Amino acid sequence: MNKPTLFTVFTPRLLDLYDLKDNVVVIIDVFRATSTIAAALHNGAKKVYAVETVEECIKKGEKLNALTAGERDGKIIEGLQHGNSPLEYAPEIVKDKILVLTTTNGTKMLNMAVQQNAEAVITGSFPNIESVCDFLLSQNKNVILACAGWKDGFNLEDTLFAGALIYRIKNNFTIHCDSSVAAENIYRQHRDDLSGFVRQTTHWHRLQAYGLEKDLKYCITENIANVLPIYDKAEGALII
Amino acid sequence: MNKPTLFTVFTPRLLDLYDLKDNVVVIIDVFRATSTIAAALHNGAKKVYAVETVEECIKKGEKLNALTAGERDGKIIEGLQHGNSPLEYAPEIVKDKILVLTTTNGTKMLNMAVQQNAEAVITGSFPNIESVCDFLLSQNKNVILACAGWKDGFNLEDTLFAGALIYRIKNNFTIHCDSSVAAENIYRQHRDDLSGFVRQTTHWHRLQAYGLEKDLKYCITENIANVLPIYDKAEGALII
Repeated sequence: MNKPTLFTVFTPRLLDLYDLKDNVVVIIDVFRATSTIAAALHNGAKKVYAVETVEECIKKGEKLNALTAGERDGKIIEGLQHGNSPLEYAPEIVKDKILVLTTTNGTKMLNMAVQQNAEAVITGSFPNIESVCDFLLSQNKNVILACAGWKDGFNLEDTLFAGALIYRIKNNFTIHCDSSVAAENIYRQHRDDLSGFVRQTTHWHRLQAYGLEKDLKYCITENIANVLPIYDKAEGALII
Repeated sequence: MNKPTLFTVFTPRLLDLYDLKDNVVVIIDVFRATSTIAAALHNGAKKVYAVETVEECIKKGEKLNALTAGERDGKIIEGLQHGNSPLEYAPEIVKDKILVLTTTNGTKMLNMAVQQNAEAVITGSFPNIESVCDFLLSQNKNVILACAGWKDGFNLEDTLFAGALIYRIKNNFTIHCDSSVAAENIYRQHRDDLSGFVRQTTHWHRLQAYGLEKDLKYCITENIANVLPIYDKAEGALII
């Protein structure tokens, strides 16, 4: 029996090179959207809407009586109640609440995957890596690992997470994909010192300058919010 | 004194994220355009025109009484005199001749860099790595390493060469670029066994299937055609 295929896409600019039909797409935005989504749902949020604009975020938040949250260029946005820090979403804040989130990169990639008719869209980061692997192995379908990157460009931390997934599940997939080979190489080289390696990323320096080092550590901690956020097409939101 | 910057661009799709003004851009298409360009100029070709279409290649070839050459999807094109193999361009074939070349990826990236007003455009691959390093070090200008990739996507062999350059010259540049960190990581991990590693690339498998293994070995042999092809704006051609 042929194994399903697996491809890695390094930035939203490259997503249209792939046919997403019949594929499970994993949206990856380690710093921080997909880590925050895992944290919020793990701590009891009912669902998370990922929207493109601040205006849409505020409007939807009012309509649904939801928490509004987001960032642009790593910074909190005026007019929204929360930022994009996974540490903001403790159970006492988020339990049974709806969250409407808008971010620089992750939101964009997620909506692109939905619009390009992926069979299923889930979100992944180190805090929920085990759930993502379990799901991909159980589905036995073709997989696209979709790195959100930074402003349409490549980034290391999303590549590192793609590599971490490939390292764990590669024996169950056919992988003819240079991006996947590169991602797994980088992960293998640094898996014993992820927190040392991510200090080399441009994003670490950017967020560290805003005092967000605790956030970054959370985002690379495995299975600290081990849920599977899956996009519900009827709702247009991520649920678990 | 501030060191000049260095960025790596993994595919033509991402080139417009960078301002090329005042930058030296290195076009990288290891398998095989920039290896072939080095070989042809090293063996005595007067100049190499890189053109987008087969029609343009034939027309320019007739007008200039030049050799015409090229490939699409790795294969030789009907109507052109030569393919995209560096081994075709022995001195007895190419000396004092003009070559007009059209290829799948390298030609495209080169013309994009010219159109985006790079200060200087050169081409690089393992056969001329030392000349490229010497030039970049002597110029003391900002650098963009522009990987041609494969059909707008990422590829490993161009990334590997970008990493090889970074490994050699990084102390002279300011590098805040995740792509460059990734490229150098991959090169450092495999530099003692490049020919083993490139067998993992999708392009190797593609070209090997056409019986081109000798070509591939040439393309990763350091300094076998150690010249510096530089784009002459007045001529619209690569010269040394």
